[in-house]
Amino acid sequence: MTEEQINDLSLNEDDVVDPWNVAGKSQTGIDYDKLIKRFGSQKIDEEVIARFEKVTGKRAHHFLRRGIFFSHRDIHSILNLFESGKKFYLYTGRGPSSDSMHIGHMIPFMFTKWLQEVFDVPLIIQLTDDEKILWRDIKVEDARQMAHSNAKDIIAVGFDPSNTFIFNDLDFIGQCPAFYQNMLRIQKCVTFNQVKGIFGFGDSDIIGKITFPSIEAAPAFSTTFPFIFGNKVVPCLVPCAIDQDPYFRMTRDVAARLKLPKPSLLHATFLPALQGAQHKMSASDPNASIFLNDTPKQIKNKINKYAFSGGQPTVEEHREKGGNSEVDISFKYLTFFLEDDDRLAEIKKLYESGQMLTGELKKIAIDTITPIIQDYQARRAKVTDEVMKEFFAIRKLNFQL
Amino acid sequence: MTEEQINDLSLNEDDVVDPWNVAGKSQTGIDYDKLIKRFGSQKIDEEVIARFEKVTGKRAHHFLRRGIFFSHRDIHSILNLFESGKKFYLYTGRGPSSDSMHIGHMIPFMFTKWLQEVFDVPLIIQLTDDEKILWRDIKVEDARQMAHSNAKDIIAVGFDPSNTFIFNDLDFIGQCPAFYQNMLRIQKCVTFNQVKGIFGFGDSDIIGKITFPSIEAAPAFSTTFPFIFGNKVVPCLVPCAIDQDPYFRMTRDVAARLKLPKPSLLHATFLPALQGAQHKMSASDPNASIFLNDTPKQIKNKINKYAFSGGQPTVEEHREKGGNSEVDISFKYLTFFLEDDDRLAEIKKLYESGQMLTGELKKIAIDTITPIIQDYQARRAKVTDEVMKEFFAIRKLNFQL
Repeated sequence: MTEEQINDLSLNEDDVVDPWNVAGKSQTGIDYDKLIKRFGSQKIDEEVIARFEKVTGKRAHHFLRRGIFFSHRDIHSILNLFESGKKFYLYTGRGPSSDSMHIGHMIPFMFTKWLQEVFDVPLIIQLTDDEKILWRDIKVEDARQMAHSNAKDIIAVGFDPSNTFIFNDLDFIGQCPAFYQNMLRIQKCVTFNQVKGIFGFGDSDIIGKITFPSIEAAPAFSTTFPFIFGNKVVPCLVPCAIDQDPYFRMTRDVAARLKLPKPSLLHATFLPALQGAQHKMSASDPNASIFLNDTPKQIKNKINKYAFSGGQPTVEEHREKGGNSEVDISFKYLTFFLEDDDRLAEIKKLYESGQMLTGELKKIAIDTITPIIQDYQARRAKVTDEVMKEFFAIRKLNFQL
Repeated sequence: MTEEQINDLSLNEDDVVDPWNVAGKSQTGIDYDKLIKRFGSQKIDEEVIARFEKVTGKRAHHFLRRGIFFSHRDIHSILNLFESGKKFYLYTGRGPSSDSMHIGHMIPFMFTKWLQEVFDVPLIIQLTDDEKILWRDIKVEDARQMAHSNAKDIIAVGFDPSNTFIFNDLDFIGQCPAFYQNMLRIQKCVTFNQVKGIFGFGDSDIIGKITFPSIEAAPAFSTTFPFIFGNKVVPCLVPCAIDQDPYFRMTRDVAARLKLPKPSLLHATFLPALQGAQHKMSASDPNASIFLNDTPKQIKNKINKYAFSGGQPTVEEHREKGGNSEVDISFKYLTFFLEDDDRLAEIKKLYESGQMLTGELKKIAIDTITPIIQDYQARRAKVTDEVMKEFFAIRKLNFQL
């Protein structure tokens, strides 16, 4: 290829978003509107948000209002269901990691908690410790340990123990014949050609990877959990980051073949790394993000030192031209964590007009995020092994059709 | 292709022997010596048989003496182990079918029973009802039902309930986390390319088939059954029909990578169909074999009517030239079911010399097989649901290192 062709290619190339890789190409990060087109999902627009508010009688979560949850599949069937007094359940999950979780990991869980409260429905959380075995050089015992430790981090978001079931695959699949039976039903509907097309698997991939999608798909069918739903067929809503969508595109195809309801989806954008929207927020780079176990001092230092600034090189230039809130990471984090819309609009105006300097904006970000993390840490301290066992117990939830 | 080329091809073509198809090309059936070369296993020769007798202090089973169990992998490591007072366990299985089992299905189980008695070791029997889901258009409930019904047929062979654990995958995998964890460890060692090479899977195969070999492999590792073996690593001997060898070639490769003992194998030939050695004994063709629930009258009629004869067209010609015991199915069945070596040799001599007619030979076959089936049926009548539960209970066996 000529250099020109290579340049063309990198210009034309799409953002990479799949369950294993997320990388935006431009300084403003991933082009989510383009992603909606590519994935064939629907945008969460004013109309969807209005419908959410009408049906629930509650103000929409700021993640919805601000496009942080930006895309959906079939959310109207869930809203219709709720409107007619019928029930659904929530399913989300996480591939556990040995590192502490960072605030980016919490976004789908914070939103899921809100959904659980607003709709008063059961929630199922899957920890795919088996996935880690297949994709990483990790031992079964270590993967289980990571899942249990991550579960405590998730529980501390504040889920309702009477209505939330958390499981890790390495233990639960061996405790629930219905799970394995549904895995088989799903595996029977999907060919290697299909997972090749959807996930990019190849001939030299291990057979465990090839079949893994059936394991993330199974919990989207209520018949996987007879101890919760009996043999009732209950529709499912999956709030998740957009990179998990391939699993559920597959699941929706399979659902049609199994004559089960297709899961609906709500897709989240990614919280960008401190270094800027085109960087991946890595759980293994301590400076890329704010971690759930960071001290106030660490939070302050990281934001001051690493948070990419949309400000101008000099104070004079900044006063004159104003800051760029589009690329400013402190501002971006405020859109995720500062709930007050008026205050956010005011900050935006002050920053873009040059009245607010980068240092001031960073201080607001620090003062907003620090108490959120401190509150979280206070809850986390209370998540004992006993509390964890409560969430992991195979039991009925508050579910009645 | 020209007709000549097609003829050439069918002459050169190997017998088909894989887990889903068994078909011999010549009138004498499958060429088992050729199969040993193709599969790379070892012949069970006089030396192996003598070693069996020396180590166990018992006369070798007639299935060994007559080449019905004809091939092995690593049987010497099992014999060495036993000789030094150490333990191993037996693992065999069956893909359940809705039809009644026929006497051909019993061969590996009859031999396994003898092995269990001679070596006094635990036995694990897997019923792959999940395999039926993946390969056939069958429902989970029906496959489980078939497994339970087949289990009763197997139990009636006469296994020791204190030392035999029977399970069906559809229930057991969801009751034993160690099973799923070992499946994963195996799936991590095997690529799609490998199962393609070993089993002939292709891109349009469902992902369940692609991963199924890990499910037949897992029980060959003692760590799959912590309730029996604790966390002890105990070697395994698999008696099975030769068509299952591909699973265990794969398992032996995986064992090396997991640093676990490679399972040893003893391979059985197939009991031919009544219609002749080149026919497949089908469980769905009631006239192809003798079924375990056949009446004495049915047995008599089937052998008289269908058992392919090695006799001559006329009595005169038979008296003159003698019968061909190589292709005679009644005689073949006697090699499987008539234990008395001297009597068998005498029959062979009389038949081949023309002194014994086909009708007489058939009568001996009927008189030999009928009481075996009747005894079996008497035992089968006593296998209640209670007895079945005993074998299926997840429990310790008589195992001590």
